[in-house]
Amino acid sequence: MNSLPASIDIHTHLIPEHIPPFAQRFGYGGFIRMEHHCPGCARMMKDDVLFREIEANNWDASSRLSDCDRHGVGIQVLSTVPVMFSYWTPPRDGAAVAAFLNDHLAEFVAGNPSRFQGLGTLPMQDTELSLRELDRFEALGLRGVQIGSNINQRNLDDPAFFPIFEEMARRGLALFVHPWDMMGSDDMKRYWLLWLVGMPAESSRALCSLIFGGVLERLPSLRVAIAHGGGSFPATLGRIQHGFDVRPDLVALDNAIPPRDYLGRFWVDSLVHDPHDLANLLRLVGDDKIVMGSDYPYPLGEAVPGELVRNMPWPDAVKAKVLRHNAEAWLYGN
Amino acid sequence: MNSLPASIDIHTHLIPEHIPPFAQRFGYGGFIRMEHHCPGCARMMKDDVLFREIEANNWDASSRLSDCDRHGVGIQVLSTVPVMFSYWTPPRDGAAVAAFLNDHLAEFVAGNPSRFQGLGTLPMQDTELSLRELDRFEALGLRGVQIGSNINQRNLDDPAFFPIFEEMARRGLALFVHPWDMMGSDDMKRYWLLWLVGMPAESSRALCSLIFGGVLERLPSLRVAIAHGGGSFPATLGRIQHGFDVRPDLVALDNAIPPRDYLGRFWVDSLVHDPHDLANLLRLVGDDKIVMGSDYPYPLGEAVPGELVRNMPWPDAVKAKVLRHNAEAWLYGN
Repeated sequence: MNSLPASIDIHTHLIPEHIPPFAQRFGYGGFIRMEHHCPGCARMMKDDVLFREIEANNWDASSRLSDCDRHGVGIQVLSTVPVMFSYWTPPRDGAAVAAFLNDHLAEFVAGNPSRFQGLGTLPMQDTELSLRELDRFEALGLRGVQIGSNINQRNLDDPAFFPIFEEMARRGLALFVHPWDMMGSDDMKRYWLLWLVGMPAESSRALCSLIFGGVLERLPSLRVAIAHGGGSFPATLGRIQHGFDVRPDLVALDNAIPPRDYLGRFWVDSLVHDPHDLANLLRLVGDDKIVMGSDYPYPLGEAVPGELVRNMPWPDAVKAKVLRHNAEAWLYGN
Repeated sequence: MNSLPASIDIHTHLIPEHIPPFAQRFGYGGFIRMEHHCPGCARMMKDDVLFREIEANNWDASSRLSDCDRHGVGIQVLSTVPVMFSYWTPPRDGAAVAAFLNDHLAEFVAGNPSRFQGLGTLPMQDTELSLRELDRFEALGLRGVQIGSNINQRNLDDPAFFPIFEEMARRGLALFVHPWDMMGSDDMKRYWLLWLVGMPAESSRALCSLIFGGVLERLPSLRVAIAHGGGSFPATLGRIQHGFDVRPDLVALDNAIPPRDYLGRFWVDSLVHDPHDLANLLRLVGDDKIVMGSDYPYPLGEAVPGELVRNMPWPDAVKAKVLRHNAEAWLYGN
């Protein structure tokens, strides 16, 4: 491990310690508020319903950094918790939530710029307001944007989103796609199925939409990374490619280039929890295109960020790429 | 290829050439009817909307057998097209549709029992009527049942289904789970996403429900096969297992045995369209538990059933198992 560089963890979530009373400000519910019920712990409440029990490492820089130091993480790339996206609100309110989160994130990063980098959020329900928020990213020092795998159940090939992606490409901002608002929400309430089945499907839905909708094709400089190793996309690509081959009338509507050709064109994080799957991912996307991501600080993530990568039977040069250098390429475009 | 046995294709769909006018009989729409608009071809119509263009090999024994002979298929295991399940109807009507399909299937099999075997369908929306229909299976000579990955969006761990599975186990009937009625139906209308993203997720949902709900555990003799290589389950098992490990309070509610322990306990078909994925499947479930399935006669299936298996770098003994002997074990329990 000593010969390996300090890692960059591109998939970590940050939530502000204090969240304004948005429900009160906007006059309707559905927002997350924080209940600090004991030292170092809090309840994320959606109105009066418990959403998640969390601890100080969700919002506190020093507890995050002590975890990082223990785990060999040099830089955490921070993004909000998807439940904060607020795509469902009237646009002006969503823009206000995004601005609050981005201001907080920028300030958090500025407090320790050698250890933290930030991916902002956008009010994706409104193209103009998203473009306006993007105007602030350079001043805020944010390196990219995290978006959901769908926006109010509209897929990422929706023409409303293209100007936003185009502007991100123009500005050299990285795009991180995170599953959320999962298909099947009404019917997979037991056994955590939305996280274990729905989320991998969401990542595949997002990638298929970006590919078949021609977004990746039209924006070759847009640097896209997908959470959870691309979800179910890599391992069901045989079916996806076959569908494209046999029914181009249904699949190749907006892009004639086969999905398999996009392997190596996007990044995926390493969060697959299985060495065989990670090896397969490397075979598919190449050793330049896996970036380490842990979903810190959540239990469904990797408890020791990068441990799976370090334990792979790969040369150190490959591990160094996956642990750090690929993330630099994705984040900074170099 | 000559040293390999004639194959058994466990995943082929049959539709009767003529379907009774169910809409007229029951007094409401939503059923499939056949429009034979030219010799050897037909339109499956849902009321007045085109569902699928099909050809005679959907219903005609001799055209099926000539395809089989050309492809080295010894036995086709026939099941209805999932759109015919009719789980959504009032129970008595669904039972009537199932009885019609099972009678037709039995007759079709009886016409050439050395080349065809049948998986019947059940009115799964009603436990009692399903059990009553199962009573007819022995006389009809049907070897098992095909069910959907969910039943009107209720998952397969629902207690209403357990007596049906129990009775199938008691009778030694095989169970084939086919994805259908896909999650995300309202929002993935473009690029065939329901088939390319939704179906693999449905298979994972079904398997997770059977495992976490304790169905496989409580019915060790129930022989279950999942379509499309188990969908996204095998390649996202790292995440599924990790979820089970870190949040047993959410996942291990009804069964304390880890999902990974069920590898080798169920069968999957070989329809993954990719040699690496098929090799990985064999590593996971073992060479006893992959059965050849082609989704004949549909284009998203394998055009030459078993071709992928025959081209694998496996010993002939393994290919023979996958092409035939494993299907015998699944179908006949020996």
